[in-house]
Amino acid sequence: MKLLSFVRPDGTETAGRLDGDHVVDLGRPLQTLLADAAGEDTPRGADVFHLGEVALRPVVPEPSKIIAAPVNYRDHQAEMNEAYHIDALGIFLKAPSSVLAHQGTIRLPYTDRRFDQEGELALVIGRPGRDIAVADALDHVAGYTCLLDITMRGGEDRSTRKSFDTFTPVGPYLVTPDEVGPLESLTLRTWVGEELRQDADIKDLIWSVPRLIAYASSVMTLRTGDIITTGTPAGVGTIADGDRITVEIDRVGRLEASVSARGADPCPTKGAQRGPVPPRTVTPVRVPPESRRPQ
Amino acid sequence: MKLLSFVRPDGTETAGRLDGDHVVDLGRPLQTLLADAAGEDTPRGADVFHLGEVALRPVVPEPSKIIAAPVNYRDHQAEMNEAYHIDALGIFLKAPSSVLAHQGTIRLPYTDRRFDQEGELALVIGRPGRDIAVADALDHVAGYTCLLDITMRGGEDRSTRKSFDTFTPVGPYLVTPDEVGPLESLTLRTWVGEELRQDADIKDLIWSVPRLIAYASSVMTLRTGDIITTGTPAGVGTIADGDRITVEIDRVGRLEASVSARGADPCPTKGAQRGPVPPRTVTPVRVPPESRRPQ
Repeated sequence: MKLLSFVRPDGTETAGRLDGDHVVDLGRPLQTLLADAAGEDTPRGADVFHLGEVALRPVVPEPSKIIAAPVNYRDHQAEMNEAYHIDALGIFLKAPSSVLAHQGTIRLPYTDRRFDQEGELALVIGRPGRDIAVADALDHVAGYTCLLDITMRGGEDRSTRKSFDTFTPVGPYLVTPDEVGPLESLTLRTWVGEELRQDADIKDLIWSVPRLIAYASSVMTLRTGDIITTGTPAGVGTIADGDRITVEIDRVGRLEASVSARGADPCPTKGAQRGPVPPRTVTPVRVPPESRRPQ
Repeated sequence: MKLLSFVRPDGTETAGRLDGDHVVDLGRPLQTLLADAAGEDTPRGADVFHLGEVALRPVVPEPSKIIAAPVNYRDHQAEMNEAYHIDALGIFLKAPSSVLAHQGTIRLPYTDRRFDQEGELALVIGRPGRDIAVADALDHVAGYTCLLDITMRGGEDRSTRKSFDTFTPVGPYLVTPDEVGPLESLTLRTWVGEELRQDADIKDLIWSVPRLIAYASSVMTLRTGDIITTGTPAGVGTIADGDRITVEIDRVGRLEASVSARGADPCPTKGAQRGPVPPRTVTPVRVPPESRRPQ
């Protein structure tokens, strides 16, 4: 099942189930739906809309937390010349206010700083928990989705560099675990324009999804609707005004976002000359996917 | 006016106005109250409880964000041997799930890591906003409160080191700006047991409260109930099982918390030998304040 957050033609924000190119209104926001054991039942007389009639929202419009993995693929660690990976860095937080819907516009805030795309597999917590065992971790997952961890390079704290409004495109929908199947067989690809920048196997995560959930829950209580994003593989690179970014994960979906630098100002903080600097350019590998609506 | 979040004797969570040693139930949670322009009016026939009858909650029980200032006093920068301060570091995020009520217990998660107290002046956002001008910033403040930014030392990301459950004691109440008066005249003191560790003037903040709000709002949209904590002055030091910590800020209140290491485990991440290390011990300066109820 694929779950969407969207705005109905009458302006009401709600969540629904994708049914071909239609969406069935499930009558309440996604977080309420996930908190409710019977939430996935279709209400009697549910309204049905064509996808063209509704505006998609970020899969979880107001997550309590966005928990992220700083260096969770070895090839990304290598390209960043990072001495450490997740087992020495732990996790970091992105602002909940940074979420962006599928096909939204990433707004670059500064004229004089470098910004990169980082494509990632993310999950949304269904059942809340604390000190969750690795063996039980997947029982707490409501579903999976695509996520872009848009990042400013430099020496500022990660939470600043990754939390600007619009810096967390997420979606287009939440796919329940039964439809996703084994995570080990998933691949992730990220294009910027026509350039394939990231092409990775999810099985190469340093901390697997269950281990990441277990660790995160040992630090902080996980709540229904929390997003955990699993980290990005090699291939991060600069983005600029006019770019179009696509992340595709088999059986999870294809997330698109565009980039605008309109209204950007000089950066008021002084982190530009510090922090790890990944390769500036990446050689195109593959032609882009055709643009299409989520389905 | 002093606003409290509390649990009524019947188990209902609500917010109220402190009136001597009583609390007047204002009939809804603090965030709802702050979002409502007329929120501070006392409802007809409001229930009144003695403070001894209710359980205090964290001032904002479920903030959307906790935004914090990494190095915002020069004397703290010096004791940490930090090359940079806030104007090169920006802001960082603590997990909303880390809040703890006045007189709660901080739970240290690990047996083999160093944990420090950091006493701070914090504010709560009333009117939401984005790209707020410095001159308008204080108009967005609902009130001020005391906060402890409990911190694990080491090389893990700040969000990990400062986000363990119970690592953000906050309270005991929210004091409206009219009662707090000029921020420049405030002093902050933190005791651990009988030892006065921090004794600072709020006017020594590198980024003032208005500048911090303006900057934070240029990165991320501020929502009603967001907590912004302003950073800690010199005098951070280790805390251990059985310690009692007190933060006092004139006209803002006195926040108390105790420390327990019961149930602590060895740390699973490898950041112990990295990161800045402040002085390990601090000489006692002053006798502790008498313990008293918030008033």
